[in-house]
Parts: sequence; C-alpha cells; structure tokens
Amino acid sequence: MNILIKNPSILCFDKEKVFIENKDIAIKDGVIQYIGEIPKSFEYDKLISATDKLVMPGLINTHTHLPMSLLRNYADDLPLWEWLTEKVWPIEPKLTEEIVYWGSMLSIAELIMSGVTCFNDMYNFADTVAKAAQDAKIRGCICDTLFDKTRDDQSDFKITRDLYKKWHKSNNDRIRVFVGPHAPYTCSADYLKKIIPLAKELNTGIHIHLSESIKEVQDSINTYGKSPVKHLYDLGLFDVHTLAAHCVHLSDEDILILKDKNVHVLNNPVSNLKLANGFSPVYKMLKNKINVALGTDSSCSNNNLNMFEEMKLASILNKGITGDSTAVPAATALKMATINGAKALGIEDKVGSIEVGKCADIILIDLNKPHLYPKHNIVSLLVYSIQGSDVDTVIVDGNILMENRKLTTINLEEVMQNAQLCAEKLTK
Amino acid sequence: MNILIKNPSILCFDKEKVFIENKDIAIKDGVIQYIGEIPKSFEYDKLISATDKLVMPGLINTHTHLPMSLLRNYADDLPLWEWLTEKVWPIEPKLTEEIVYWGSMLSIAELIMSGVTCFNDMYNFADTVAKAAQDAKIRGCICDTLFDKTRDDQSDFKITRDLYKKWHKSNNDRIRVFVGPHAPYTCSADYLKKIIPLAKELNTGIHIHLSESIKEVQDSINTYGKSPVKHLYDLGLFDVHTLAAHCVHLSDEDILILKDKNVHVLNNPVSNLKLANGFSPVYKMLKNKINVALGTDSSCSNNNLNMFEEMKLASILNKGITGDSTAVPAATALKMATINGAKALGIEDKVGSIEVGKCADIILIDLNKPHLYPKHNIVSLLVYSIQGSDVDTVIVDGNILMENRKLTTINLEEVMQNAQLCAEKLTK
Repeated sequence: MNILIKNPSILCFDKEKVFIENKDIAIKDGVIQYIGEIPKSFEYDKLISATDKLVMPGLINTHTHLPMSLLRNYADDLPLWEWLTEKVWPIEPKLTEEIVYWGSMLSIAELIMSGVTCFNDMYNFADTVAKAAQDAKIRGCICDTLFDKTRDDQSDFKITRDLYKKWHKSNNDRIRVFVGPHAPYTCSADYLKKIIPLAKELNTGIHIHLSESIKEVQDSINTYGKSPVKHLYDLGLFDVHTLAAHCVHLSDEDILILKDKNVHVLNNPVSNLKLANGFSPVYKMLKNKINVALGTDSSCSNNNLNMFEEMKLASILNKGITGDSTAVPAATALKMATINGAKALGIEDKVGSIEVGKCADIILIDLNKPHLYPKHNIVSLLVYSIQGSDVDTVIVDGNILMENRKLTTINLEEVMQNAQLCAEKLTK
Repeated sequence: MNILIKNPSILCFDKEKVFIENKDIAIKDGVIQYIGEIPKSFEYDKLISATDKLVMPGLINTHTHLPMSLLRNYADDLPLWEWLTEKVWPIEPKLTEEIVYWGSMLSIAELIMSGVTCFNDMYNFADTVAKAAQDAKIRGCICDTLFDKTRDDQSDFKITRDLYKKWHKSNNDRIRVFVGPHAPYTCSADYLKKIIPLAKELNTGIHIHLSESIKEVQDSINTYGKSPVKHLYDLGLFDVHTLAAHCVHLSDEDILILKDKNVHVLNNPVSNLKLANGFSPVYKMLKNKINVALGTDSSCSNNNLNMFEEMKLASILNKGITGDSTAVPAATALKMATINGAKALGIEDKVGSIEVGKCADIILIDLNKPHLYPKHNIVSLLVYSIQGSDVDTVIVDGNILMENRKLTTINLEEVMQNAQLCAEKLTK
C-alpha cells in the first residue's frame, strides 16, 4: 500500500540536534520514498491528513517479556526475591502455547496503542511470541530464555537454532532472533562459554540481564572475585554484539568495559525503581558515548508497557539524582527511545528515524489536547507532557496497525477476554 | 440533579486498608446519599451504567500554579536559577487578567480530563483563577502569592482579605481561600511575622513553598543559623494550619517539627526531579505519621498536571531510593492523592473518599483497556498501570463536568485556541 501523509510536523534527527520540520511524506511498498516535495506522479492508495498531528519514528521497546502481562498487578509491593521466587517463577511452569499467545497479543495491543512499533522480547515459548508478532504485523526481536540446567544444553541450543531457522529475518525482515542467556547469576561460566560460539555461529546478538541488583553484584564478587560486567568480559561474551538489560550497579571500570566493547545498554528506569533496585547511571554512560536505549521490562514489574513513561522518567530521574537539570534533555530521551533502540537491535539502517530509504515505522501523535498546549517546544512536549494515548495512528513496515486509535490487525475485545481467561487459568 | 451510578466497582478506604466493593451509588443534591441498597423511592434525573467501570474519589492536586501552563515547554533542560530568573520571572509582569483566565481554563480542562476534582493553587491574579474555577464548576483553593517588598504590605494583605471576602466558601463551598506567602527565602522574617496574624484573623491556612532546594537550606543556615523548617517553627508560623509544598531537603529534626506541628506536606515528585532538586523523604514522613499529599506543581516544571503520574512516581521512587520494594505501596499512593489531600486542605469532612454524606466528588475509570487487563488487583492497577486518559466521567459536587471524555462546562476548542494566543502574547 502506498501512503501519502499530508501536512504533518515531523520529528527529525541529525548528528547534532533534534528538530521539527513541516514536510509531506510518501511511503511506497513499506519504505519512506519521499520527504518534502512529492512528485506529482506519486500514486497513493491512502491519504492521511496530518494537520495538527506530529509524525515521529515509532518507539522501540528494547527490553520486555510480553507474555508476563498476564501477571500484571498479580503481586506488587513485595520484596524482590519473594516476588520472583514465590509468585512469578512458580507460575511459569503452568504456561502453555495458548496462554503465551494471548498474553503476547494483549501486550502487543498495548504496545501499538502507545506508539511502539518494535519490541525486543525475552521469554520461553518464543516461537509463540513470534507467531503473535506475525499475526499483529508488529516488528519484533525474540529470544528463548536460556537458564542453566533446566534443560540439557543440546535441547536449549536446538530451540534457539530452530527459532533462528524459522523466524530470523522472516516476515519481510520484521522478525529477528537473538540468543538469550537469562543472566550471569542464572547461567554458569561453563554454560555461557558454550553460548558465545552459538551466537557467533548464527551471526546474531546476545540479549542478557546484567547488574540489575546489588545482590547480583555482591554474589558475583563472592563467586568469581569480580563484577558481573568484568565476568562476562573475561568470558569473551562481549566479543558478540551484546544487548545488556538494566546495568544499574556499575563501577567506573564496568562503564569503561561496556564502552570499549560497544555493549548496548537497555535502561528500564520504571522497573528498576519499582523492584527497589535503584537507578542506572545513564548520564555517565551517555557521557562515555555508550549507546543507551530504553525498555519497559515486563508489565509484571512496571506495570505497563508505556515507553512515554520511560522517556520522561529517564530524563527527570537523571536530573534528580545528579542535581543537574540539564542532564538527559528531552532530545536525548527521544533518541534513547528510537534511534538508540534501533542501534541496539542492529537495525538502525532500517528503522529508528524518519529518513528516505528507511522502513515506514511511523507514529502520528494527535497534538490537539489541552495538556499539549501551548506549542512552545514540540520536542519537550513529546517527553514531558504527552500520554501514550495521544498516539493516533501507527504504521509498521508500511502497514497501518492503528488508525484514529482503532487497531486494524487485532480484535481487541477478543484479546482482552482471552487474556483474562488465561490469567485466571495461570493463577487459580 | 440526582444521579444513580449502577454496578460500579468502588474504591473504598477504611483505617486499615484500601479495598474494592461492588455497590450502587445514589447522589442527591450533590451529596452521596446511599451506597449499596438504594431505596426504590429514590428518584434520579441521570442514570450512569458503570459496568466495567471503577468509581473512586476524585484526585486532589494539592500544589499547583494553574496559569503557568501557558509556559509549558517554554524553557526546559536549563539550570534552575536560569530557568526561574531569566525565563519565568521576566515574563510574569506581562500577565493580564485575560491571559491568566485562559491559562487557568486550559489547566482546569486538563485537570478534569485526568481525574482531578479539586486543586490548591498559588498565583498572582488569584481572583481570576477563582473565576475560572467558578465557570468550570471544579473545586479549588486559591491564594494570592505574597512576595516581600514587591508591593507594600497593606496592599498585599488587602488583596488576600478581599479574596477571602469574595470567594471563601463561595459556590456552595467549592472555593476556599488560603494565605500564600511564597517561601521563606522570598519573604523576610518580619514580613512572615505579619502574615501569621492575618491567617489567624481569617481563620484559614497558610500555603507556602518549603525546603525545595539545597540552596534554600544552605542560604537559610547562612542567614538565620537554622533550616527553613526550624526558622518557620521559631517564627510561630506552624501554629496556623500549614500546607508546605516540596519539603525535599529535611533533617531528622525538621521531620520531628513537621510531625509535632501537624504540618501537611505537599509532595511533588515529578517537579522535584525535573528541576534537579532531588526527592523528598516521603517514606520517613509517612513512618512519622505526617500527612503527605500529592501535587503536580506547575506545568512549567512537570510538564503536565497528571496526578496519576505523581502517584506512580511517589510509589516507585520511594522504593528505588530506599531499596525497599514494599515502601509506599499502591494503597498509600492512592490515599496520598485523595483523602490525604482533603486533610491537607482541611476538607476531609466533605471530600477525599466515597462515603455517605460526603460531597459527590467522584471519577469513573474505564477499565476496558488492554493495559488494564487482566484484573488481578484493581488497587495496583490504579497506581501502576493506568493513564490519565482512562478517566471516563468526572463529577464534582454532584455536577457532571465530563462524561465519556466530553467536557460539559468547558468549550475545549475555544480554551485551547485562546491559550495558544495568550501564550504567544506572553513570550513574544
């Protein structure tokens, strides 16, 4: 389908700055073909009149566990280990493909309705998560969670190889597959040493939790005599393209390692606060030119998938903890949620900004709301004032997934009902 | 108008806990007349079918500066003093009644649309803020900002006395008037000493900024040899019902003073982070049984008036900074945004909870959204998962101010257009 977007404001990035331009956009076969002067010969099937609307790159949620939305608000305000070991983990053996499918669809509906066009997921039943992404036509990266010793290594690696074979670059390259060792504290050194060649063999990245809690760091020092970051570095894991979620508790040496090895950091400010893990030194990492992207983590520890909340919190939290009101300005937060996410996922040539030749992963914001007036500075407004529900239209790979807040690829009533039923099955 | 709300879930408080009940509600002449069994003889003009909806007390925004929404996103990511002295303060002399009216109406529209039924404002042109509240039929407390030496004392006090005479307990007691000395660092000790008898004469409370920044505390110690809290205590200011906004930087002695003098603390977590002032020790104050309520501060330092954001941040920020994931649980955050706010404003006999005999200040939440599924725990959902836009219907004093997200007392298009024009007048 060819689409002409008429009269929008567009959020643009260049190397130095983030700015707004008023130009038309033409999309042909899923790709941004023209920005600005549209040739008279351009034929379109769909005209979107975007006066009073802002066009920006779709948000990229770089760390989440979609099926866990079924446990949203199931167990809050508990100590971390009680929450994980007594509430979350005992339930997970009850998962079935059906349950994971409806949990994923519920999450994908929420993602689209709050402007996310691409996610990066880690969970069991990753094949089913991919199926849901395929059905909804959203862009997504998946990986099977690899825990040491819950299955034998060969079964583990076979699952990841099969996922890769079936899904990697499928659906017009909307779906990609990573290798997903859960964390340094749930995967032994020996196990991680076998995972590195697997990632190299598949020529794909590793998605892992890293330095999330103080306990994890202390345990690592007790066990290995070094921090989790140094431990992974010494194992050679960072020789592979690595996406490290959380990175809350970092020494200065850790930060230098992440920088030297081009590790992509996936910051989850809401989840880190809510689980009482603290806050990641994002300002320090950005100063060191580390690529920091944003994620929500699961709805189980957040408790939603709203990337606008993450952007605002990433910005104001770093100001509050540094005492510097210029830290992580709005423009930086917007990049963290878009182009930095694309870089982390290794797809910055395809998505993350509105540029000719990139895939049309685009969202339109309805600016005609009282909390978005007056219009002094649209960049600030997109971080500090907006709500997820201000997203009006969502396009992924040239397909319209939501228009005027109506989903086109998902039957929302059916999804919510099935999600409720599946949640009750899980917890009763 | 008599209203029957049929089949809602209701958020209820008792001394020990926060819980959900399913009962009908009957409203007569602005007052909650029945909850549960409604007499067959009850005649209503309006039936609200509330299946799939939750009824909760309207949110109370206890610290804001409504007209400043016209400067929303005008000057962000700047050092605090540059922001205040070079951006905000130079503009304020340009204010007119017309500008303040449309700024206030813009803010009130946003408040209603995100579930706020009562605000506590501090600004110049408070008479105009009250006029806007009257026109919109929202509940609100106002005060004229008292700065030392910008006018002579007699003019200052006359403005507050006139406001009191004209507005206090007007509009069926929806509007109240406080005395509003700006802060200990902008009002001299001598000036504050004259304000205390004024508040006593009017038998009303004092609304003041307190211990917002480290600079304020350091300057107070340099000037008076004591903290701002101790300074106000020694002046006798806390002998009056006091609403103290911010209270970010507090010593243990300060906390004991606030407790002993029953000072009501108005916590503004978003603004405190955004302006790089840090975070208030809410968990410590709550432990000391201090009444802590919530506010947004102005849209100039937030940059919206969304109390759901404040609730979530108050909860997760206190978990993150204490390392205790049980700190400020959802139920506590809900009370901070409702009944604690009513206590701070001295109107807990009238509003802040859904109880027979209280005014019908009620909001209905549409629970039929993907980010509000599944329904394991509605109390958690109202703090951790919700968006302001999930508010469907707003009732203040028995008047319906919004129904199915349509405002009834405000012409939204007119307000947004006038707000934009006024903002341009101010900043050009």
